[in-house]
Amino acid sequence: MSCNPGQSDKLNVHLVPHTHDDVGWLKTVDQYFYGARNNIQHAGVQYILDSVIQSLVQNPERRFIYVEMAFFWRWWNQQASEMQETVKELVNNGRLEFISGGWCMNDEAATHYNSIIDQHSLGFAFLKNTFGDCARPKIGWQIDPFGHSRELASLFAQMGFDGLFFGRADYEDYKQRNKTKTMEMVWKASANLDRQSWLFTGVLPNGYNPPDGFCFDLFCDEQPIMDDPRLHDYNVPNKAVGFATNHIIMTMGSDFQYENSNEWFKNLDKLIHYVNEQQVNGSDVNVFYSTPSCYLYALNKAGHKWTSKIDDFFPYAHHPHGFWTGYFTSRAALKRFERHSNNILQAARQLNAYAAINNQANLFFLNEALGIAQHHDAVSGTEKQHVADDYAMRLAYGIDKAFEVINASLTKLMTKPEKSTPTAPQFLCQYLNISECLPIENQERFTLTLYNPTVHPRIHFARVPVTRDYTIRDPDGQVIMTNLLKIPKATYSIPGRKSFAEFELVFKTVLPALGFNTYYFEVNAEKESLLYKLVENNEISKNNACTLQNQRVRVDFDESGNLKQITNLDKSITVPMKQDFFYYEGLYLYYLAFIIFVNNRLFLAFPGNNTKSEFQASGAYIFRPQSEESYSVSDTRTITCVKTENVQTAQIIHNSWVSQQITIHDGQPFVEVEWTIGPINIKDSVGKEIIVRYDTDIKSNKKYYTDANGREILERVRDYRPTWNYTVAEPVSGNYYPINSRIYIKEPNRQLTILTDRSEGGGSIEDGSIEILIHRRTLYDDALGVGEPLNETAYGTGLVVRGRHWLIVENPDSSALFHRIGAQQIYMAPIATFSLVKSTFKDYSENYYTTWSALNEVLPLNVHLLTFDLQEITADNVAKYLIRVEHYFENNEDPDYSQPVIIDLQALFTQGQIVDMVELTLGANLELKDLSRLEWVTVDGETSKRSPFKKCKFHLKTETNDFEF
Amino acid sequence: MSCNPGQSDKLNVHLVPHTHDDVGWLKTVDQYFYGARNNIQHAGVQYILDSVIQSLVQNPERRFIYVEMAFFWRWWNQQASEMQETVKELVNNGRLEFISGGWCMNDEAATHYNSIIDQHSLGFAFLKNTFGDCARPKIGWQIDPFGHSRELASLFAQMGFDGLFFGRADYEDYKQRNKTKTMEMVWKASANLDRQSWLFTGVLPNGYNPPDGFCFDLFCDEQPIMDDPRLHDYNVPNKAVGFATNHIIMTMGSDFQYENSNEWFKNLDKLIHYVNEQQVNGSDVNVFYSTPSCYLYALNKAGHKWTSKIDDFFPYAHHPHGFWTGYFTSRAALKRFERHSNNILQAARQLNAYAAINNQANLFFLNEALGIAQHHDAVSGTEKQHVADDYAMRLAYGIDKAFEVINASLTKLMTKPEKSTPTAPQFLCQYLNISECLPIENQERFTLTLYNPTVHPRIHFARVPVTRDYTIRDPDGQVIMTNLLKIPKATYSIPGRKSFAEFELVFKTVLPALGFNTYYFEVNAEKESLLYKLVENNEISKNNACTLQNQRVRVDFDESGNLKQITNLDKSITVPMKQDFFYYEGLYLYYLAFIIFVNNRLFLAFPGNNTKSEFQASGAYIFRPQSEESYSVSDTRTITCVKTENVQTAQIIHNSWVSQQITIHDGQPFVEVEWTIGPINIKDSVGKEIIVRYDTDIKSNKKYYTDANGREILERVRDYRPTWNYTVAEPVSGNYYPINSRIYIKEPNRQLTILTDRSEGGGSIEDGSIEILIHRRTLYDDALGVGEPLNETAYGTGLVVRGRHWLIVENPDSSALFHRIGAQQIYMAPIATFSLVKSTFKDYSENYYTTWSALNEVLPLNVHLLTFDLQEITADNVAKYLIRVEHYFENNEDPDYSQPVIIDLQALFTQGQIVDMVELTLGANLELKDLSRLEWVTVDGETSKRSPFKKCKFHLKTETNDFEF
Repeated sequence: MSCNPGQSDKLNVHLVPHTHDDVGWLKTVDQYFYGARNNIQHAGVQYILDSVIQSLVQNPERRFIYVEMAFFWRWWNQQASEMQETVKELVNNGRLEFISGGWCMNDEAATHYNSIIDQHSLGFAFLKNTFGDCARPKIGWQIDPFGHSRELASLFAQMGFDGLFFGRADYEDYKQRNKTKTMEMVWKASANLDRQSWLFTGVLPNGYNPPDGFCFDLFCDEQPIMDDPRLHDYNVPNKAVGFATNHIIMTMGSDFQYENSNEWFKNLDKLIHYVNEQQVNGSDVNVFYSTPSCYLYALNKAGHKWTSKIDDFFPYAHHPHGFWTGYFTSRAALKRFERHSNNILQAARQLNAYAAINNQANLFFLNEALGIAQHHDAVSGTEKQHVADDYAMRLAYGIDKAFEVINASLTKLMTKPEKSTPTAPQFLCQYLNISECLPIENQERFTLTLYNPTVHPRIHFARVPVTRDYTIRDPDGQVIMTNLLKIPKATYSIPGRKSFAEFELVFKTVLPALGFNTYYFEVNAEKESLLYKLVENNEISKNNACTLQNQRVRVDFDESGNLKQITNLDKSITVPMKQDFFYYEGLYLYYLAFIIFVNNRLFLAFPGNNTKSEFQASGAYIFRPQSEESYSVSDTRTITCVKTENVQTAQIIHNSWVSQQITIHDGQPFVEVEWTIGPINIKDSVGKEIIVRYDTDIKSNKKYYTDANGREILERVRDYRPTWNYTVAEPVSGNYYPINSRIYIKEPNRQLTILTDRSEGGGSIEDGSIEILIHRRTLYDDALGVGEPLNETAYGTGLVVRGRHWLIVENPDSSALFHRIGAQQIYMAPIATFSLVKSTFKDYSENYYTTWSALNEVLPLNVHLLTFDLQEITADNVAKYLIRVEHYFENNEDPDYSQPVIIDLQALFTQGQIVDMVELTLGANLELKDLSRLEWVTVDGETSKRSPFKKCKFHLKTETNDFEF
Repeated sequence: MSCNPGQSDKLNVHLVPHTHDDVGWLKTVDQYFYGARNNIQHAGVQYILDSVIQSLVQNPERRFIYVEMAFFWRWWNQQASEMQETVKELVNNGRLEFISGGWCMNDEAATHYNSIIDQHSLGFAFLKNTFGDCARPKIGWQIDPFGHSRELASLFAQMGFDGLFFGRADYEDYKQRNKTKTMEMVWKASANLDRQSWLFTGVLPNGYNPPDGFCFDLFCDEQPIMDDPRLHDYNVPNKAVGFATNHIIMTMGSDFQYENSNEWFKNLDKLIHYVNEQQVNGSDVNVFYSTPSCYLYALNKAGHKWTSKIDDFFPYAHHPHGFWTGYFTSRAALKRFERHSNNILQAARQLNAYAAINNQANLFFLNEALGIAQHHDAVSGTEKQHVADDYAMRLAYGIDKAFEVINASLTKLMTKPEKSTPTAPQFLCQYLNISECLPIENQERFTLTLYNPTVHPRIHFARVPVTRDYTIRDPDGQVIMTNLLKIPKATYSIPGRKSFAEFELVFKTVLPALGFNTYYFEVNAEKESLLYKLVENNEISKNNACTLQNQRVRVDFDESGNLKQITNLDKSITVPMKQDFFYYEGLYLYYLAFIIFVNNRLFLAFPGNNTKSEFQASGAYIFRPQSEESYSVSDTRTITCVKTENVQTAQIIHNSWVSQQITIHDGQPFVEVEWTIGPINIKDSVGKEIIVRYDTDIKSNKKYYTDANGREILERVRDYRPTWNYTVAEPVSGNYYPINSRIYIKEPNRQLTILTDRSEGGGSIEDGSIEILIHRRTLYDDALGVGEPLNETAYGTGLVVRGRHWLIVENPDSSALFHRIGAQQIYMAPIATFSLVKSTFKDYSENYYTTWSALNEVLPLNVHLLTFDLQEITADNVAKYLIRVEHYFENNEDPDYSQPVIIDLQALFTQGQIVDMVELTLGANLELKDLSRLEWVTVDGETSKRSPFKKCKFHLKTETNDFEF
């Protein structure tokens, strides 16, 4: 790639033609691709790419960048080989450059690092396979996401990116940076990885739009350059430019622009011609086509020293009442489904690899659907309803296809060589979270296989909804002690639940690392009619004070059903607390609408009318409560405590649409809170934002801690921003941060940690308090484009959402051990598959393995197998795998597990010998040894090192293949 | 050109990709060309052409037609030679076909045949010079004009066109034709030219738009064809087609479409592919790219017999209250300026040719401006105000440039070889119609040169506004008898008039054919202060009955100032009449707006809300009076009669905004009515449509006669249409027809003819009555796109318009002689140029010729020199001319002058000998001998002959070069 270096004595204006193509938002990804439903929004990416290629061919000076591989891949597949060759040439010449190169431009607040890496790797692999190394993206390009995560910057650095540009920063931050000329900086993006995580980061000067008067897209109304003096309307002398620094970037494009790229390029050609023509008259402006890489390169060569930054860019506000913190929680069900889908994808990959069935083709669908779902209007919840439905449909379809792989893999792994009976298929029961698994209802026999996708053995309490009583055998054929629990009424009444099951069997399992156990269920005929009686054997108390307690933890409730305190019995630490569900009112103003006269202009005031920031409504993006006051969903509650050997639970009903189960399991340290919210009552015509809040006596001193994308922890300070003088206009919303997996508060000896099963928003608005926004229903649009209130419905009523939190009461020094392991157990949960069988256990176990592990030895507890993905099996039967192994504790958070660790990769391959291996960048598109990143110097004189990824040691083709973290 | 003939056993669907590009409407022609002011309307023709060429190159199957040369020429001039070669190849292969090929798609109601021919010739010449004969247009394509003129069809036939397609026909006509399958027909387009005027004519099936569901333009919201089964939203099976006949045309395009032609073509490619793919499954639909020529060729080959038609398609109504008859008059001032501009252009061409100054370059501007002004939203008056201003500006600029030619030519022709004094430039006084010529005010001496652009000598009464008294000498130096008249007060008060002149000198001139006379003015110093007294010498009567009378005509007024009768003294024919100015009220409904509930839908009723045809308002297009009642502009009037030797005039003031002067000139048979209307009073918030109406005792028996484009006369019958059973919903508007130059009513022995100086609308709503709509001011938009009321203003108030009618009272047999000659004298009036001189008459006449004619002999009175245009002067000094000579009387309208006539073309070239000549089609782009038109058979078995243009005999290189008409 050749860059125009500009001229040292001129102001060099880098014109960067680009299009910003949302991978779904107001329309679905395919509607955007084809240009369907243009009545919603005019946008057709197929035409953009058709058009841009033509324009690039026409003039070799022109450049274009393309970002979203979800679209490019769609387009590429439809091209004839001739066109593909043309594009390859453009890419090789640097005229078409891929920037960022992920499947989408991912959201930064609601995404998990596992999926961020995957979606980038998916795009990178497509690019590498299609265009070779020349097309490797080198720049992060997060021009539209609403808030920026430090973790993403760290991941980008580890992917080998040289820099990151984005468009949106908090209005106060932006103002200050603009004033102090610190729009560009070195972001020290990890507290653990040092310089290998540093990333040059720039806030773009005009969002991602062109400067006023210079939008030449067909959707812009601005004047083209009219340069034929033979015609009327000649306007060349009127178009003038003026800038302030020696190199400046101008993003020449915007949402879905370049559908007819000739309009842009023709006018840019003219702009360049006429502006540079003035140089002979003494003009010192030098304009040329460029790309972010070329601009970055020019900045790098400028010899400047840059300020640095260690915090992140959350939350984002565009005005004093416009905090984009609602989307941390928006579409809570979709957010969970996305996380769940990743769980399945990772497990399916492992099984495909270990069973060596080489069916990557069927994994692609879920991989691609998850790639799309990472988009900043997908998992973020900021899309239109029909688009959210499309994302869910894609994930569901992807799961179906991935499950074909799981089924085939499990079948292969389970089936003994001597097997004689035909194999019954495995199936998923995806409604287990509402205690529904229709195929097993009333069956005589079935099996449950639990596959553990982590590299550590784990204890798991299985929960199976039943209509009959069953005897359950463990893999060895031993009958398991099970408990029968009545399914709470709140579950029956969830709209859409079809099951007749009123009971659940709960039993303890110990699952092998990277392996499965199969549990054999046989109906307990003689007890069948006694189900109700069996349940009554449980110790049940209703509306009395009660205490749940196992070997490690005790949970006390008062007689009104309030959670009173949690005690860590191992450490003798008690945290007294109040817990309740509250709602904030979505903005409604005091009257629904009123008329305001300002400067002789009359306008209607209503929430979401964004003529004034005061009218900012809560919506898909924005959390803007009516006031900082929150209201309890109910003054009273009913509590039913049920105690069995395996499980003890308090079922608490707050009102007709809010309930929870607080549960502890035998021997387990976590207190599980499963909440069920919805349909949110809007009969009062007030939108509601539902939180769960824990008020404790922990002296948290304004500080609280949230994770970034499920990875590192960032300290948050209430009503404060580390890098600017923060004005408090929204005392609640302005203190909300993304919670991808955990939030905690602490004092020297006590810490309350809450793990989540999906991304949510929350914060600590009072010392000792943690609140998490778990479900939202807004009645106004927040006027940021989506054009719909966030008013999700299903089965003709407001959407019901169920989720889980795990509470950990520990001392701060030990907390990481629990929240690291716990969070991993939640996001990489066992995959439960069922199978209907006819044979007896004896027959079954003669034909099938009932337990299996990929590993011979246990891997260290601080090692996570992030990716285990079979790439191909060659003709001579050599398999190629993509593996990511992760030390997933931070520095200094645990005395033991924060230490470096050595593993032998061969441990992952019990069936074969590693014959070769190469270490790659995080995105798996470059050998690490070939990586060379641009070097930057901070104002403190620190220099980002070249090729900094040297911490891991590995020994090729030795017997050990040790990795030191 | 190769055409896909279709398949005889299939329904053949001719897909015709096209764009309809208005040469000005909501935006100016250059704004449309460049895509400027896209906030008004998104449209950029430069991009359309850029884009279409790319798409045609990409797939050789694709076809496209282009129509408006005003745009194509603009685009072509900006292309590099490489692109020009590409386009030439596309044209030669028939992939890009020019249809119609005029500078614009001209209006049919308000245009004059002289300018229609010119605008087509301008486009044809560009095409021929650029692409050669292969690009000759063969089809008329009037898809958007609102009503269709028989004369245009005749002109098209004479241009060698094989057929005509248009989009709009009266809703009743359309319905009937649809029902009787007579959408296509043979139009017998001239009452005089027989089969050489016959033109196959088709009404397009869907206006000019694609069928529902098949608009793939970027401005359409319809679903694209989504054909990648790998993606979601695959919809190929849903797109289906169904038609009824063996060949059908589908116009795949619309207004300013194909800006990104890939969107159209990509989907049409797919449509063709998937529809034809079904043929293997038995489908009998055969879809392919085609052009109107190919479709026409297929129809021609089908062996059908077609119905014929002899009337025209005026007026056009799209619903019972939607008669598009307002635009016959809309923008009365622009309509006159356009006609005036043509007068100057034709004279300038003649002078350029005879003076042989070879300055066609400067004539081009006016030629081009007039080409643009013929557009169906230009001279029609149906454009936005700023666009009307742009047309006027272009014409004014064109006149300035053409006047450079006139000045240079006259200077050359006037200057004697022995001339010694420097030549003073000639100048135009374009405000003479409001008695203003600032440069001569207070001058001591100046000359007036009158150039007569007709081939006949003519008597002309010159009228010069003066601030002093002058002695005027004729070309021989004789002092002319002049009369001094006071300029009426109504003229002073016209907003914008800057002149201090209060008087006009009127004198008689006899101008030579195709030549000029110069009149020498010298101030009459001793009489200077006596101007007022001089005027008082005229015979003046105020508010008394008066009679104007010369040798040929008498005009009687009663004591109230009413015109009472006109008498033709030669023939002793008297027509008693009432004459007055009336207004119709533009629709206002009875309340300004009211709310109507229909079927539970609530809507606002107001004029121009086109939810119901009853709400149709008057506007730029539509004349929709509140009722058939018209109101006199005043109950009283003041009359001042002034009689002098040269001129007798009655100045009648009706009210503060309506006045007229009725004038006869010494020895002349015409009664001139010069009306001055405006600012139309709208203080009552009612828009007004101003008519002048003559109520006579002529027993006209429902019939009246109007011209078509200034050429042939068509009979009109009140409340009747020749070809369908007409429903009378609008008794006034539905009986209006275009009056381009004349309207008359008659009975066996008397005929009242009114000649106009511009296009107007009018009719005969009662027997014996003629009314002409002369000025309009509407307060509502008529909801047909223009988006503005027709509310013209100037100088801060409503626009004042002045115009002239000539009244002729004659017997029907003699009327043609007078109206043919009179109409020619009005539209080809003498061009008055002034020059400031310092010398005495003696000096002047020694240096300058004061009279000159191009002709040695007088040409017959029924011959009109329509075009006399120098094409080039070769290096060896041979000049090439384009000449159109016209027999301008119709068959049987005059006993003498309707007869064929023989002329010697050499008479036009007194200074040189004709060395060669070729006879061309009317558009001058094909030798007549090479013309071969398609042959059509009518249901009556008549066959249109091939090569029918054989009536003219000419003898090449003989001494006579006779033309027989």
